[in-house]
Amino acid sequence: MANFIQPILLNGHWTSSIGTSVFHAVNPITEEQLPGNFPVSPWEEIETAINAAAKVSRQMRGWPGSRFADFLECYAKEIEARAELLIEAAHAETGLPVSPRLKDGELPRTTNQLRQAAKAARADTWRAPVIDPIAGIRAMLGPIGPVVVFGPNNFPFAFNGISGGDFAAAIAAGNPVIAKGHPCHPETTRIFGDAALTAIRETGMPEALVQLIYRTSHADGAKLVSDHRIGASGYTGARHTGLKLKAAADAAGKPMYLELSSINPVFIMSGALNERAAGLADEFTGSCLMGTGQFCTNPGLVVVPSGEAGTAFVTAVGERFAKAPVGTMLAEGVRTSFSAGIQTLIDAGATLVTGGLPGGGKGISFQNTLLTVHGRQFLVNPQVFQTEAFGNGSLFVLADSVAQMAEIAESLEGNLTGAIYSSTTGSDDADYATIEKPLRTKVGRLLNDKMPTGVAVSAAMNHGGPFPATGHPGFTAVGIPAAISRFGMLQSYDAVRPQRLPPVLQDKNPGGVWRRIDGEWTLKDL
Amino acid sequence: MANFIQPILLNGHWTSSIGTSVFHAVNPITEEQLPGNFPVSPWEEIETAINAAAKVSRQMRGWPGSRFADFLECYAKEIEARAELLIEAAHAETGLPVSPRLKDGELPRTTNQLRQAAKAARADTWRAPVIDPIAGIRAMLGPIGPVVVFGPNNFPFAFNGISGGDFAAAIAAGNPVIAKGHPCHPETTRIFGDAALTAIRETGMPEALVQLIYRTSHADGAKLVSDHRIGASGYTGARHTGLKLKAAADAAGKPMYLELSSINPVFIMSGALNERAAGLADEFTGSCLMGTGQFCTNPGLVVVPSGEAGTAFVTAVGERFAKAPVGTMLAEGVRTSFSAGIQTLIDAGATLVTGGLPGGGKGISFQNTLLTVHGRQFLVNPQVFQTEAFGNGSLFVLADSVAQMAEIAESLEGNLTGAIYSSTTGSDDADYATIEKPLRTKVGRLLNDKMPTGVAVSAAMNHGGPFPATGHPGFTAVGIPAAISRFGMLQSYDAVRPQRLPPVLQDKNPGGVWRRIDGEWTLKDL
Repeated sequence: MANFIQPILLNGHWTSSIGTSVFHAVNPITEEQLPGNFPVSPWEEIETAINAAAKVSRQMRGWPGSRFADFLECYAKEIEARAELLIEAAHAETGLPVSPRLKDGELPRTTNQLRQAAKAARADTWRAPVIDPIAGIRAMLGPIGPVVVFGPNNFPFAFNGISGGDFAAAIAAGNPVIAKGHPCHPETTRIFGDAALTAIRETGMPEALVQLIYRTSHADGAKLVSDHRIGASGYTGARHTGLKLKAAADAAGKPMYLELSSINPVFIMSGALNERAAGLADEFTGSCLMGTGQFCTNPGLVVVPSGEAGTAFVTAVGERFAKAPVGTMLAEGVRTSFSAGIQTLIDAGATLVTGGLPGGGKGISFQNTLLTVHGRQFLVNPQVFQTEAFGNGSLFVLADSVAQMAEIAESLEGNLTGAIYSSTTGSDDADYATIEKPLRTKVGRLLNDKMPTGVAVSAAMNHGGPFPATGHPGFTAVGIPAAISRFGMLQSYDAVRPQRLPPVLQDKNPGGVWRRIDGEWTLKDL
Repeated sequence: MANFIQPILLNGHWTSSIGTSVFHAVNPITEEQLPGNFPVSPWEEIETAINAAAKVSRQMRGWPGSRFADFLECYAKEIEARAELLIEAAHAETGLPVSPRLKDGELPRTTNQLRQAAKAARADTWRAPVIDPIAGIRAMLGPIGPVVVFGPNNFPFAFNGISGGDFAAAIAAGNPVIAKGHPCHPETTRIFGDAALTAIRETGMPEALVQLIYRTSHADGAKLVSDHRIGASGYTGARHTGLKLKAAADAAGKPMYLELSSINPVFIMSGALNERAAGLADEFTGSCLMGTGQFCTNPGLVVVPSGEAGTAFVTAVGERFAKAPVGTMLAEGVRTSFSAGIQTLIDAGATLVTGGLPGGGKGISFQNTLLTVHGRQFLVNPQVFQTEAFGNGSLFVLADSVAQMAEIAESLEGNLTGAIYSSTTGSDDADYATIEKPLRTKVGRLLNDKMPTGVAVSAAMNHGGPFPATGHPGFTAVGIPAAISRFGMLQSYDAVRPQRLPPVLQDKNPGGVWRRIDGEWTLKDL
C-alpha cells in the first residue's frame, strides 16, 4: 500500500489522478509523516472537473432552493456520522486539540453553518427579490456559476474548501463547487469528500455538484480561478498566494472573495487599564494564545497608553505569556512565517519582552512571544510594524497620547476586526470617540470590551474588511444570507411574461419570501 | 481670451491648472473646434484633490444622510436653474438633439436620479441594517471613502462623472467625489461644477465634497484609482481604457465599478416573426438607430431563424436602415471605432446588407449599417462576431434551428441585456425556455418582446451584467438603493455599547428605517 495514491473526486467518482507528483501530511505534534500519498493534480484533470461543474451548473439552472437545502442538510448528517473519523484525522493532521476545539467547537459549528445555509436556500432569503410593479421590472439574485473554494490550514472543518462557510454559501446559491483541499490536512478533506458524495447520492443531486482536488501547481491554480467556465472563487489563506490568484481572477473579470491577513488591532484606553488591568491581561492572553494564535481574528497589535500603567500592563502580559503552555503550530511553514514575522518586527525596532525562539511546546512550536514598540516609532514606519506574525505572539504599542492612538488607528491597513476597551464608568468616552472615528473605516467588525477571536455565525456578522484583509469591503465570508449573496448574480426581468418569471418574482408569494415591493419589505402577494 | 485655460474645481475653488497641456471639444455637427481651452491635469493637482477628498471624507464620518440629501436636492435645483446653458453646451459638444433627447429626456432623468438618491440617503434604505439581538451584533453599510467617477461620452448629463448615476450614488452613501469629466463635453461638465459648488455653499457642505478635473494622462488615471486614500471608483466608457484602470485598482485592492461594453443580443423566435415581422422591423430600427446607436444597451446582435421569413426580415430591416436619416456621432473617435468594428465583422465573414461607409449624415457620421452572418459561421468564431461596433449598426445572425440559437446564446460573453421575442399565442413557449436558460446567465437584464434601449430608473433595474459588460455580476449602476450600496463598506458592531451605535442600529427606530431583525424585515423598534 505504500505506493497507493489517494484518488480525487471527479464528476461523482473517486478517480485515480494522472499526476506523477504526490505529497504527504505531517503530524505537527510528532513531526512524523502521516500515511497516505495525495496527488498534485495536473491541468488535464482540473479541466475535467471544470467541464463537469459547468455542465452541472447549466443543468441546475432554475432548480428550487429546496433541492440544495436537502443536500446541505443530508451532508451535515453524513458529516456527523463520520465525526469520530474526522476528528481523529484532523487532530493528527493539525495538532488541534480534540476537545473542546475540534469535537465541541469546530465540528458543530460546521454542521450548523451547513444547516443555516440550507435554511436560507429553502427560504430564498439570499435572493433579495425586488419588484417594481409600475415599471414592470423585477429582480433577484441567481446562481453565479461553478465556484472554486480554497480552504485555509487553520480550520480543517469550518473553513475547509469542501465543508466550510464558502462551500455552504456557494451550494446554497445553487452552484456546483470544485473544492481545493489544503495540503496540511488532506485525509480530513478526503473524509468530507466521502460524506459529500454519499449525500449527493442520497438526495439525487448531480454527481458533479461537489468535486475535490487536493493540490495544484500555482500556475494551474491561477488558470482555474480565471477560467471562463468558472463563476467565482473563494480563498482563505496566506496573503502572497491569495494575491497571485486574485490577480489572475481579476484579469479575467472573475469575482474572487478572499480573506488574506489581519492583525486585529486592540486599543486599551487608560480608564480601562486603571480599572481592570489584571483581568484584561488574562483576557488578552487567553485570546492571543488560543489555538496557538492561529486565528484570522487573533489580536496581533495592541495599543496601550505609555507611562506606568501601560508599562506594568506589558510586564503583566509578558509574565502570563512566559508561564502559559506553548501550543503546537499547524505546520512547519506556519512556524517559519511566524518566526520571519517576529524577526521583521525586531529588525524594525521592536523590543522583545518574552519569547522569540522556536520550541517550548510539543512538536512544531515557537515560544509565546511578546514585543513592544513606542507609538512615535510605530508611526515612523507603520507599514512594517503591521507585518502579520500569524501565531502565538503580539506587538504592544505604547502610545503617548490619545491623539497618537488616533494617528496609529488612521495609519492602519484594512483589518477584519478592531477592538476598543474603555472604562465602564464612561470616563473614556470622549477618547473613545476620537479612536473610533478612524478605526471604524479600517475594520469590518468593531468590538467594545471584547477580544476579536470567536466569530459568531450571525446574520449581522462581518467577517470581512477593507483590503488587504479581504478583496472588497462590502462582503462578508460569515453571516447568512450575506455570505450566500456573494455567489449570486443580479438578474433583472423586464416585461417578462408572468408565467415565465421565477417563482419568487411572481405575483403570488405562497412560500412567504421577504420581498421588496415599491420600496417596502413584505411577505404578501403582489 | 484665446489663451485662457479653464480652471479646475479643487477643494471648493476654481483653480488655475498648473498643467501645460490643453485640449478642446469639437462640435460633431459642424466639425469645428469649440471655444474654451481645458487643461490636462498633472499628478500634483490630482494629489491635491485626493488629499482634500480624504480630509473631507474623515470629517463627514457619521454625518446623517439628511445632510447629503439636502445637498443632492439643492444640486438638482441648481441644475434646473442652469438647464438652458447645459442643454446648449451639451448640444454643441455632443450633437445630441435638444428635444426630446437632452431637454425632455436626459436632463429630467438626471435630476430625478439625484432626487431618488437623496430620498434613499434621507431614509437610510441603502444601509440595509441588520440586528442580531441575541448575539449582540449589529451591521450596516457605511461610506467607503472618496470616490472617483469617470463619465462616458454618450450621456453628457445622466452618466456625467459630476452629475450622473455613479456620482449621485457615491454622494448618497456619504462620500466625497472626484469627478473626471469626459473630454468630449468639458463645457457641459464645467457648468455642472458651477451648480455643484453653489449647492455645496447653499447647504453648508464641506467645499471638497465635489471636485472636478477634466483630463489626466492614462498613467495618472491609473495612479488615481489605485491611490490608498481612495475608497472606490466608477467608470463608464470604452473597454480598453476601463480594463487598464481596473487592473491598477485591482492590484491595489480598490473596488472599481465598471461598465465596459455590451452588444445586447436580441433573439427573435419564428412565431414572433410570422406574426408581426413589419412591426418588429420598425421597432428594431427605431431602437438601433436612436441616438445614432450610441447607447450602452443598443441592440448590436440579432438572432433570427434562417429561411424565408428570416431572410425577408433582414431585407426589411435593411430597407428601413437605408431610408432612415443618418444621425451625427458623438466624436471622430466614435466613428473610427465603429468603422473598425464593422470592418472586423466583415473580415471575419459577415456580409454587408446596407451601409458600411462613413458619411450620410450631418458632420461626423457613418451610414446606418446592417450585416448578416450564418449561425454556423458565427459559432466557428463567436468571439470575433461579438466585436462591439458602438453606433448605428447591427449584426443579424441567421440560425438554422432553435438548438443553434441556444448554442449561440451559450457562446455569448457577458452583456447588460438580452431580449427574446416570441409569439403572443404562446406557440414559441417551449423554444423560449430553450433560449432563456443559457441567455439568463449571460445578461444582467432579460427582456420579453421589448427592445433593450431605455433604462428605467427602477429599484428592480439591473444595469450591469457579467464580465466584460461590467467587472462584477452582482452590481448595478442604475437602480436605487442597489447602486448606492456599491459605495458602502460593511460595518459590523459587536458588543458595542448602545449609546455608541449609529442611529439606525439603536433599539429605537424613530426614523422608520427598514431593518432586518432576527431574519424579519421591520420598521419597528427593537
